Amino acid sequence: MSAPTADAAVARPTSPSATTPSAAGDPITAAVHAAAGAAKAAARVLARQTTTTKNGVLLAAADELLARTAEILAANAEDIDRARASGTADSLLDRLRLTEARVGAIADGLRQVATLPDPVGDVVTGKTLPNGLMLRQVRVPLGVIGMVYEARPNVTVDAFGIALKSGNAVVLRGSSSAALSNAALVGILREVLTRAGLPADVVSLLSSDDRASVTALIRARGLVDVVIPRGGAGLIEAVVRDATVPTIETGTGNCHVYVAASADLDVAESIVVNSKTRRPSVCNTAETVLIDAAVADVALPRLVSALQAHGVVIHGDEPGMEPAGDADWSDEYLSLDIAVKVVAGIDEAIAHIDRYGTGHTEAVVTTDLAVASEFTERVDAAAVMVNASTAFTDGEQFGFGAEIGISTQKLHARGPMGLPELTSTKWIVWGQGQTRP
Amino acid sequence: MSAPTADAAVARPTSPSATTPSAAGDPITAAVHAAAGAAKAAARVLARQTTTTKNGVLLAAADELLARTAEILAANAEDIDRARASGTADSLLDRLRLTEARVGAIADGLRQVATLPDPVGDVVTGKTLPNGLMLRQVRVPLGVIGMVYEARPNVTVDAFGIALKSGNAVVLRGSSSAALSNAALVGILREVLTRAGLPADVVSLLSSDDRASVTALIRARGLVDVVIPRGGAGLIEAVVRDATVPTIETGTGNCHVYVAASADLDVAESIVVNSKTRRPSVCNTAETVLIDAAVADVALPRLVSALQAHGVVIHGDEPGMEPAGDADWSDEYLSLDIAVKVVAGIDEAIAHIDRYGTGHTEAVVTTDLAVASEFTERVDAAAVMVNASTAFTDGEQFGFGAEIGISTQKLHARGPMGLPELTSTKWIVWGQGQTRP
Repeated sequence: MSAPTADAAVARPTSPSATTPSAAGDPITAAVHAAAGAAKAAARVLARQTTTTKNGVLLAAADELLARTAEILAANAEDIDRARASGTADSLLDRLRLTEARVGAIADGLRQVATLPDPVGDVVTGKTLPNGLMLRQVRVPLGVIGMVYEARPNVTVDAFGIALKSGNAVVLRGSSSAALSNAALVGILREVLTRAGLPADVVSLLSSDDRASVTALIRARGLVDVVIPRGGAGLIEAVVRDATVPTIETGTGNCHVYVAASADLDVAESIVVNSKTRRPSVCNTAETVLIDAAVADVALPRLVSALQAHGVVIHGDEPGMEPAGDADWSDEYLSLDIAVKVVAGIDEAIAHIDRYGTGHTEAVVTTDLAVASEFTERVDAAAVMVNASTAFTDGEQFGFGAEIGISTQKLHARGPMGLPELTSTKWIVWGQGQTRP
Repeated sequence: MSAPTADAAVARPTSPSATTPSAAGDPITAAVHAAAGAAKAAARVLARQTTTTKNGVLLAAADELLARTAEILAANAEDIDRARASGTADSLLDRLRLTEARVGAIADGLRQVATLPDPVGDVVTGKTLPNGLMLRQVRVPLGVIGMVYEARPNVTVDAFGIALKSGNAVVLRGSSSAALSNAALVGILREVLTRAGLPADVVSLLSSDDRASVTALIRARGLVDVVIPRGGAGLIEAVVRDATVPTIETGTGNCHVYVAASADLDVAESIVVNSKTRRPSVCNTAETVLIDAAVADVALPRLVSALQAHGVVIHGDEPGMEPAGDADWSDEYLSLDIAVKVVAGIDEAIAHIDRYGTGHTEAVVTTDLAVASEFTERVDAAAVMVNASTAFTDGEQFGFGAEIGISTQKLHARGPMGLPELTSTKWIVWGQGQTRP
């Protein structure tokens, strides 16, 4: 059972120097198209499975991952050794590392998805037309989801679980640094599917040896229904720019907290500190604080010293700060750094957010109802918070139970994406021979 | 009042031979970016207008279009003369032609949109979390909609009306053959906006002299929120392939009617004839009939003769038909032609639809509940009809009141798109100082 699977759809990493031309019709593109085509056929089968069957697979996968923890950790140790040998930073090694506890958490994640409502088959709306036609708009799976993502191997299993529950096949293109871990995980998941009588191609893993497999995946129109990139801003931008398959942009969060003139400064302090320091490396962390000039005399030193007490480095144009350039306003730090700017009022705050924000989460701290209303109405973002930490933008916090990412685009889904966001709809129309005059 | 508007954002056609390089930074791209940037600023203002204000603009626009019918018809006559001189077919001239009655219908369309519910501000869902945070998911406009479309000038005003009501600015790139008609219409609409105190840039018309303006529009990420192409399959495919702005595919309909073994042949005949002949040039017309072999002896001659009696040319592999090639199965005729195929049963019918269908509308004629259920469940299309004409897939028929197109993609919107399909959502979260543990 612990021998490497020979299954062709689970890519085994070869020499890291192996590269292949990426022209259409080349072996990499052909392999991606074969995997996506197989996924499409598998998706057709999966779409017709009951919730009970899908939940059974999720629970069986959780059990099997736990039972084979040693095998998974051995593969992961090899990834870690390679990464360390190639000089990878400790923080990245930590993202890559699996432990017994982390495998347990991954299995728990699958069990949790099994408890969530199945969106497939939900009737979104329906009506009977004057001519007697009965219309129902029913949730159906999207079909095949392509995932392009970076180091964390837990994403491999999370994506499988959420996709399976929502009736979708998933084609994974993970990081080359996690290639062995991902192959071990996907190999186990495919075995579980086969044992349950479902097509193994409900999940497959592309080779991560060459960027050409990313390009082929994101351009496989007709085979892949949506591509979801998860990773840094560079990865997401490249995928969205080059894709011909529809994409959902996720996770780039240049989030702001605007401390208005009317702010309760106790609230401002706890929200700014929580928004920045709770988990600085995730997308909902605050990257810039905008302080209204009317309260800057008091608020600025207070917030700066509270942040500094938490080890945060302050960037900005005020005395004693690290001098800020355009990148300080436009880029995510994803670290214990924050940019601080004094603004003349709500108009300047919103103009700054319009210019530099990524449409993820924006927060205002205020006791003034008019300011709260204006901020929530005018700011264009997936989530707008009044007197609450930016850290709340999260599928689990919102009560979705599972999250495949946080969409920062306006089409299809905006904000945390749960299971319903991985479905489409179909109009089903029952008649008795009606024709249209 | 009837002088051509000098407004720079309404493009005036110049010599049809004028071309300009399409590199970034060229004058065409710069002009498109200027128009889209102005539209973005206008959209911010429009997003905050009340339903009453927007309805007032729609009614004023209807009045003004009627009052200036002569001016519109004069511009249209010039387009028609040019098109005729360049050898345009009569059927296309008819699509291009405006008459007093057609201008009246266009104005009526705006009045109808004024009667529809405004989706902006609708609360889609909401809840209070255990920690007291109050969440609302609220409908907001998408922002700036780019429309790329072919001949019919009525689309110019329809798109403006639907976009305005849903709070969106629209940047139009129409056909060069309708350039003067479109400029006259958009000039009037911009005057109405200005008179109402709204930014004229809520609607603007790009030059149609050069394809480079299409390319610039569909790649204006950050300025344009969605591009909707309306026209033939070639236009739609080119836009979707080259766009970096999210697109919504519309309107390509290679629709099938499957006459099952259990079909009531009276129902089959009326549905097949209606699906093909009601309006052969529109996307919901049937292009192929699949007849179950079990009833082909009776059904085939009956359906063929009924279709022929309506002037339909039959293509297929059976004796006496025009021989069918792959294009007969894969392309839309959009004319009084239909392909007919005998299939072994529902599996072959669905396999054929999977291979050649465009995911628009598929119909089954059957009296067998199991066949109806299986067909609706397995066929992957925006609309699946049981014992009803394919002609019913239409926003007005579905009760939406207005339609900006029929989406054949799975993301964001699928099937007829009304006003809510032109919105996104925003999570608004009200707290009392909550931070996340």
